[in-house]
Amino acid sequence: MKKNTQNTKELIGKMFQGNVRALSRLMTLVENRPEALPEVMSEIYNRRKPARRVGLSGPPGAGKSTLLSNLIQAGLRGGKQVSALCIDPTSPLSGGAILGDRIRMANTFNSKDVFIRSVASGDSLGGLAEATKYHTLLLEAFGSDLVLIETVGLGQVGYDIRNIAETLILILVPESGDTVQILKSGIIELADIIVINKSDRSGADEIAATLEMTFDEPRDGWRIPVIKASAREDIGTDDIIIALDAHYEYLNNSGRLEVYRDPAADLREAVEFQFQRRMRGGLLENHTDAAAIAKTVISGDKDPYTASVEIMNLLIEGKNNG
Amino acid sequence: MKKNTQNTKELIGKMFQGNVRALSRLMTLVENRPEALPEVMSEIYNRRKPARRVGLSGPPGAGKSTLLSNLIQAGLRGGKQVSALCIDPTSPLSGGAILGDRIRMANTFNSKDVFIRSVASGDSLGGLAEATKYHTLLLEAFGSDLVLIETVGLGQVGYDIRNIAETLILILVPESGDTVQILKSGIIELADIIVINKSDRSGADEIAATLEMTFDEPRDGWRIPVIKASAREDIGTDDIIIALDAHYEYLNNSGRLEVYRDPAADLREAVEFQFQRRMRGGLLENHTDAAAIAKTVISGDKDPYTASVEIMNLLIEGKNNG
Repeated sequence: MKKNTQNTKELIGKMFQGNVRALSRLMTLVENRPEALPEVMSEIYNRRKPARRVGLSGPPGAGKSTLLSNLIQAGLRGGKQVSALCIDPTSPLSGGAILGDRIRMANTFNSKDVFIRSVASGDSLGGLAEATKYHTLLLEAFGSDLVLIETVGLGQVGYDIRNIAETLILILVPESGDTVQILKSGIIELADIIVINKSDRSGADEIAATLEMTFDEPRDGWRIPVIKASAREDIGTDDIIIALDAHYEYLNNSGRLEVYRDPAADLREAVEFQFQRRMRGGLLENHTDAAAIAKTVISGDKDPYTASVEIMNLLIEGKNNG
Repeated sequence: MKKNTQNTKELIGKMFQGNVRALSRLMTLVENRPEALPEVMSEIYNRRKPARRVGLSGPPGAGKSTLLSNLIQAGLRGGKQVSALCIDPTSPLSGGAILGDRIRMANTFNSKDVFIRSVASGDSLGGLAEATKYHTLLLEAFGSDLVLIETVGLGQVGYDIRNIAETLILILVPESGDTVQILKSGIIELADIIVINKSDRSGADEIAATLEMTFDEPRDGWRIPVIKASAREDIGTDDIIIALDAHYEYLNNSGRLEVYRDPAADLREAVEFQFQRRMRGGLLENHTDAAAIAKTVISGDKDPYTASVEIMNLLIEGKNNG
């Protein structure tokens, strides 16, 4: 344990000096051993500089990886340290294919100013969001100016990264279905910027026009831009960068940026994660009185909802206002 | 408060007698006032009879509503009381359109053996999953034999209903993208039964054949069937019913059904919901010692992760093994 602590401190020191291997090992550490988190975070959380955090989400086949690569290159041209986190659903089926893509993509970048990493925790989906948050904090400590977070598909992670990414780009293609269907899906509610990729295909203009009309009125002071792009030809990338800058300015001026950088919000989230972890660790089973109540639920004498209130009172009441 | 309690007990009594209006009002109650939950659940949880719980998920435009309507009618022909919960993302944009669909669909059923309800909580997405669970329990108390849960899109709710629905049907269309993309999206991991709808369109046979090959080997003893359907013409519905029956038998024989009907699992979930609700209710702010630690986080003297461990120890340690 003493040895581990020494190692961790050493890794953190190296990471602050720009050592990519140390960064990678710390990412693996917080992904696999959440109990090491306080040790890591106590060294980095208040020493890091917030990065620009941008999410990329959209249905499979929309061209997210290509667009990601364009944004990485645009960031590099702007002299930025750029990182990308690619979130894969836990899947033995998909894992291989995606990993292949990642490696191919990583190979096209040999600059030390780029860092690409897949977040593919073997844990639950909730665990994926947790790991992504910790990785983002580590990247900020490492010195990333821009952290791009790509999610495959529209799954839960799409919603979860909404809490991490200050700006979320939604990528659609003309094949994504008609506009009514897109609006129905609810995913559009999450987006700050909409990109219609593969915009040379038929139907692109109609979708773009309808979405533009739909988002004609600003909501909370932000009018969602609808950008036509052709990621393979790097068409539209400049427009996306302009939209990203405009959205940053909007976030900054409206005070919304602070919410993403609020330590109190990180604390609330961390406490909830802690509780979930304690529950998985046998919190109810190891607490004599709680376990007794749980028994009455299993025997059918009490319902779980009445019991949950009683258990919560047992666990945390009495110490309130103490 | 006394009055409310009287009313709730009265509503529950009427609901047990088959009063649909009382059922509706109880659903609204647990959706809007989670603090009323113990009162409702203490009366219904251990008196209800588990229903067959089936989820329907898939991308927008896949024909979920039409398939839902076919399954409702098939259930009715089998003499069942059938209920459908339709989960809408919280959306002022999509709300109207979807509600319109629902009403049109509800109008086609005038039998008292059918109950259709949208779950459209104004709360968070987490709240949506909570409400769906409570509604399912209420429907089981009401006497539903079959509860169908339809989710719009592939969002977080798709993952959340996986914990409620014993069997999840994934509906795809030939336009859903090529098979590699579907596999990449991770959504397929959640499915017990795959339906290729609009199977008269080009590409349907190829997708079905590739998916069949992919799922050739049973996983944990269940081989995912791939069913071609044409919901508008009611083609394929019988095959889906057969697959549902086969999956039920599999769940029952393998002991997996018990997991969905385990009061201890409901208890763990309820305790986690309770904790989240307490946090939103100011748990940290109202606890003197926790609030003091939170202050050191806000001032930048401590990181949120170290603080979260300390706070959790404060909140629940010491009473363990008490």
